[in-house]
Amino acid sequence: MKGLWLENNHLQLRTDIPIPKPPQGEALVKVLAAGICNTDLELIRGYYPYTGILGHEFVGLVEQGPENFVNRRVVGEINAACGECRFCRSAQPTHCENRSVLGIVNRNGAFAEYLCLPIKNLYPVPDHVPTEVATFTEPLAAALEIQEQVTLGTDRRVLVVGDGKLGQLVAQTIALTGCELLVVGRHSKKLANLEARGIKTGLKDVVKNGYFDVSVECTGNSAGFEIARRALRPRGTLVLKSTYAGKLSLDASSLVVDEITLIGSRCGPFLPALELLAQQKVDVKPLIEAHYPIEEGLAAFEKAQTKGVLKVLLKMDSNNK
Amino acid sequence: MKGLWLENNHLQLRTDIPIPKPPQGEALVKVLAAGICNTDLELIRGYYPYTGILGHEFVGLVEQGPENFVNRRVVGEINAACGECRFCRSAQPTHCENRSVLGIVNRNGAFAEYLCLPIKNLYPVPDHVPTEVATFTEPLAAALEIQEQVTLGTDRRVLVVGDGKLGQLVAQTIALTGCELLVVGRHSKKLANLEARGIKTGLKDVVKNGYFDVSVECTGNSAGFEIARRALRPRGTLVLKSTYAGKLSLDASSLVVDEITLIGSRCGPFLPALELLAQQKVDVKPLIEAHYPIEEGLAAFEKAQTKGVLKVLLKMDSNNK
Ligand SMILES: [Zn+2]
Ligand SMILES: [Zn+2]
Ligand SMILES: [Zn+2]
Ligand SMILES: [Zn+2]
Repeated sequence: MKGLWLENNHLQLRTDIPIPKPPQGEALVKVLAAGICNTDLELIRGYYPYTGILGHEFVGLVEQGPENFVNRRVVGEINAACGECRFCRSAQPTHCENRSVLGIVNRNGAFAEYLCLPIKNLYPVPDHVPTEVATFTEPLAAALEIQEQVTLGTDRRVLVVGDGKLGQLVAQTIALTGCELLVVGRHSKKLANLEARGIKTGLKDVVKNGYFDVSVECTGNSAGFEIARRALRPRGTLVLKSTYAGKLSLDASSLVVDEITLIGSRCGPFLPALELLAQQKVDVKPLIEAHYPIEEGLAAFEKAQTKGVLKVLLKMDSNNK
Repeated sequence: MKGLWLENNHLQLRTDIPIPKPPQGEALVKVLAAGICNTDLELIRGYYPYTGILGHEFVGLVEQGPENFVNRRVVGEINAACGECRFCRSAQPTHCENRSVLGIVNRNGAFAEYLCLPIKNLYPVPDHVPTEVATFTEPLAAALEIQEQVTLGTDRRVLVVGDGKLGQLVAQTIALTGCELLVVGRHSKKLANLEARGIKTGLKDVVKNGYFDVSVECTGNSAGFEIARRALRPRGTLVLKSTYAGKLSLDASSLVVDEITLIGSRCGPFLPALELLAQQKVDVKPLIEAHYPIEEGLAAFEKAQTKGVLKVLLKMDSNNK
């Protein structure tokens, strides 16, 4: 089968990859579409060691698996957990000590014609949700993880720093809590997406320091971190939603004096994410920048790496259309 | 009156300081004894700008104030709050936007014969608690702040990093929660204090990485931070109890991947601290390294700055003995 294969920081389109055989408890999924995310770009740059097929945001059709799943469109949680370690036993499978992660850690990913995932990781996509919309389930779940960690609500002042793919999803989910929300970014065109949904936005100099109860850092750079930090009142909470290249240097004494909480946030719950998409409470269509067939996967990555570009999708079934 | 005066990073013993006149709502307190803390040493090194009398851990005798306070021994909360800002109105006076802080920010401190503090900041010392023991009320309250922020209990694994003054108080308070506690430090003599109270201790290489639910960083250096970080399981909590000279450099991506919470912790509740001292549930006597009269204050600071030295106390009433 065809697939985008990463090895030694080099991405190549291979056509000779064998179609995987699902082990016990896993399903064989024919990939329909998949989204390129910043984590993929970081893997190519070598921030984490990984060899294999990239990709973790996907929609597919189950080809082999339980009867009630076969021929249905599904999305899938990317962490394949062992079910036996202390994290699995305490209902925290995304932190399983023995996990593989689709397209990220020890498990071939979604930028290929087929993938395998544990059956328990799969969620059927409601019929009326278009495939390209459902590819956002995984990053939308990650955005919802914030609300699993921090209580938001109408009495809270929340700042989102960053207007990229992640910042836009985070902003839309947080807006639903009814809190006082401000999103700051660098691109007035991207911010306009959010303004159109009634979300207050601005460039970074509109942030009132010490004003916010919660700030969410979605840029992955230290300038964004500084904005998120200074925006907080004493005893405020800074959610780190992005990973960072290299070390982050921060004023730890001021965290002590102001008793700030910093909290890292990663994968989140799939069901509520699918529900938001089904109910059209989150609009992901303006985030789609381009589509490419898998055969043009390298061009798709070039596009995705261009500054300011939002979501680039890969379509796998181009030959069957 | 006599006092230890800091100006331009230079500490001097002055004898010409006028006895302060308490403004409306404040009491005049004759200082009996006061403890030198790391914050005092940092102020001298110029980490924070401050000019005036140093000192914030004290026991004194009320000379002018409400009738029920006069001639009683008191300790005092160090943050003098405005009572009107959003933090005061939400019962967080230690974060008052307009606060002065005894011996730290815009308010003459306790290393002098007299000080003034708002009456509402004062707490009577129970008769049977010795003066030198009660000087630990403020740092003990700071140690208790951890339990206001993080839930501890018998099912938790907690690591304290640091065997200095602060680490010892933190360890003793946390031990009372019944959790599984380990304290690591560099000085077997200091760790023996805690072993004698039934607290498990060790040198840093005994720490099992990924084992602890909560770690408390009490060293103020980046090596201590690294130990505290690596000790945590995914979704664990790292309490920053010390301030740091300069910036702290950390791996923010790993905080995101492991969804770690980092929380700064400063001043805490006085009443429970006094209660622990009154009930002798915490033993501070082994922490007292030396006493000096105020006239030998500069020698006291030299002692306190010596590596490995625990608490150095100043006695103010040497002439009256
Ligand atoms: Zn992703
Ligand atoms: Zn597991
Ligand atoms: Zn202190
Ligand atoms: Zn105030």
